[in-house]
Amino acid sequence: MLRLRCLLLSSSNSIPLKQRFLPSPILSCSSSSSSVRSKMESVSYTTRSSSSSSRKLLFRQLFEKESSTYTYLLADASHPDKPALLVDPVDRTVDRDLSVVKDLGLKLVYAINTHVHADHVTGSGLIKTKVPGVKSIISKASQASADILVEAGDKIQFGDLYLEVRATPGHTVGCVTYVTGDGPDQPQPRMAFTGDAVLIRGCGRTDFQGGSSKQLYESVHSQIFTLPKDTFIYPAHDYKGFTVSTVGEEMLYNPRLTKDEETFKSIMENLKLSYPKMIDVAVPANMVCGLQDLESKAA
Amino acid sequence: MLRLRCLLLSSSNSIPLKQRFLPSPILSCSSSSSSVRSKMESVSYTTRSSSSSSRKLLFRQLFEKESSTYTYLLADASHPDKPALLVDPVDRTVDRDLSVVKDLGLKLVYAINTHVHADHVTGSGLIKTKVPGVKSIISKASQASADILVEAGDKIQFGDLYLEVRATPGHTVGCVTYVTGDGPDQPQPRMAFTGDAVLIRGCGRTDFQGGSSKQLYESVHSQIFTLPKDTFIYPAHDYKGFTVSTVGEEMLYNPRLTKDEETFKSIMENLKLSYPKMIDVAVPANMVCGLQDLESKAA
Repeated sequence: MLRLRCLLLSSSNSIPLKQRFLPSPILSCSSSSSSVRSKMESVSYTTRSSSSSSRKLLFRQLFEKESSTYTYLLADASHPDKPALLVDPVDRTVDRDLSVVKDLGLKLVYAINTHVHADHVTGSGLIKTKVPGVKSIISKASQASADILVEAGDKIQFGDLYLEVRATPGHTVGCVTYVTGDGPDQPQPRMAFTGDAVLIRGCGRTDFQGGSSKQLYESVHSQIFTLPKDTFIYPAHDYKGFTVSTVGEEMLYNPRLTKDEETFKSIMENLKLSYPKMIDVAVPANMVCGLQDLESKAA
Repeated sequence: MLRLRCLLLSSSNSIPLKQRFLPSPILSCSSSSSSVRSKMESVSYTTRSSSSSSRKLLFRQLFEKESSTYTYLLADASHPDKPALLVDPVDRTVDRDLSVVKDLGLKLVYAINTHVHADHVTGSGLIKTKVPGVKSIISKASQASADILVEAGDKIQFGDLYLEVRATPGHTVGCVTYVTGDGPDQPQPRMAFTGDAVLIRGCGRTDFQGGSSKQLYESVHSQIFTLPKDTFIYPAHDYKGFTVSTVGEEMLYNPRLTKDEETFKSIMENLKLSYPKMIDVAVPANMVCGLQDLESKAA
């Protein structure tokens, strides 16, 4: 597998990943030394270990109560640098997230979004101002700014672990699902960070931001429901206090996505949801990593 | 190890566990056939597996937003009956919890509390009315009613897995911590359900219900901080969106429990917290498995 060093790109210098790393690039930050080292180094902190390798994924699920958003912290605990990434950080909980990163002695390398959120402002930009060197990642299809723009098939490497990018548009035009690696040296079962494509016993709305119920149905059935049934589903939100599901569970019990395509489209077109209250603030901010407000304040 | 069948006790016939099962009893429900079988049986649902055995713990963390309470679902997924238990269920989320139990094809055998809660009404009693055969469990020291009253050293068996009972008074006089089993056939790392004894970067207050800062300090240092450092800490509450910690982390970063005993006692005596708003409703209800209101309505 091809491994490349992290590129030092400024946030204003976004380059689609495919243009730089072909084919199937792997972003690797294994060479950089950690600037944060705590007393925790002697202690192993993992939530699961691959049964067939000594590699250890450190995993933490974090919740932001106001928007019911889950942020996920993943790190390669077996790597000397403990390189880490955050999926879907929220602006108002950035300090909490960074305190965990510090306490666990991790080196944060990426702040990643599954899509341009409409219900909260991403913490990606704020994290970049607080932790120099962190790179923001979002899909090229989102048309948002970020240090690295990913497409289907790209791999995001942290230490010897990686996330695979799967295109799952439908909630928004640029939604992607990040899936932990496949193979004996990667965590088992696999874990899918589905954003709003699949929620636990639900899914994201499809009536804004280039949403399409037809596209969402196709995305989920071709990109998520084809994963092993024991793959964990970690969504961007939950409103009922669920923390995790599996592909197998949602294939059986998701009240929308278990229906045929026509029924699904009919359900989605008749949800009669109110206008998203944060959308006019959150979407413009999230198109620039959540930094619009900071930039306008600095101007 | 001694294994005994579940005793069919009515909720009005509580007998301290020590009187029935001596020494170090193990409650086992492995003989009963499951009344709930779903389409899920062919799918494996585990969050972690013991590296040295084929036994699989199915684990789910569930959140109740109003009181910021965590409920935990544990089951032996390798056992044909998939016997399961709930730790600290909340009355208003019982239907949600039972829907997960049903979807996953589990047989719920125990509804367990870490202590008599003051901030929410337990779901134990309500669960018993909805799922015949489920036994409620609480500590004998709590002086509350339940089908089974446990003491330090007792083991609560579900399939071939078990929880060990550790007495951790201090937040209340009857607080216990439930710890997953020790040994190659039990989940690794171990998991401690600490109730309010240890919260993530905090601890429960000690000014009501027979609370004692001195006792809490001794409990945590003798019963929890002596566990392996990679033991997961799953508390009864979190108010900042954390979901899990470890013994090693709290030994280094808990802002209260890392202090010496005198400083800890001083911190706890000067918290100046307001009167617990739910205590006058919740505690009387929880002394009878949360059924006080149901019984008075039926009267």
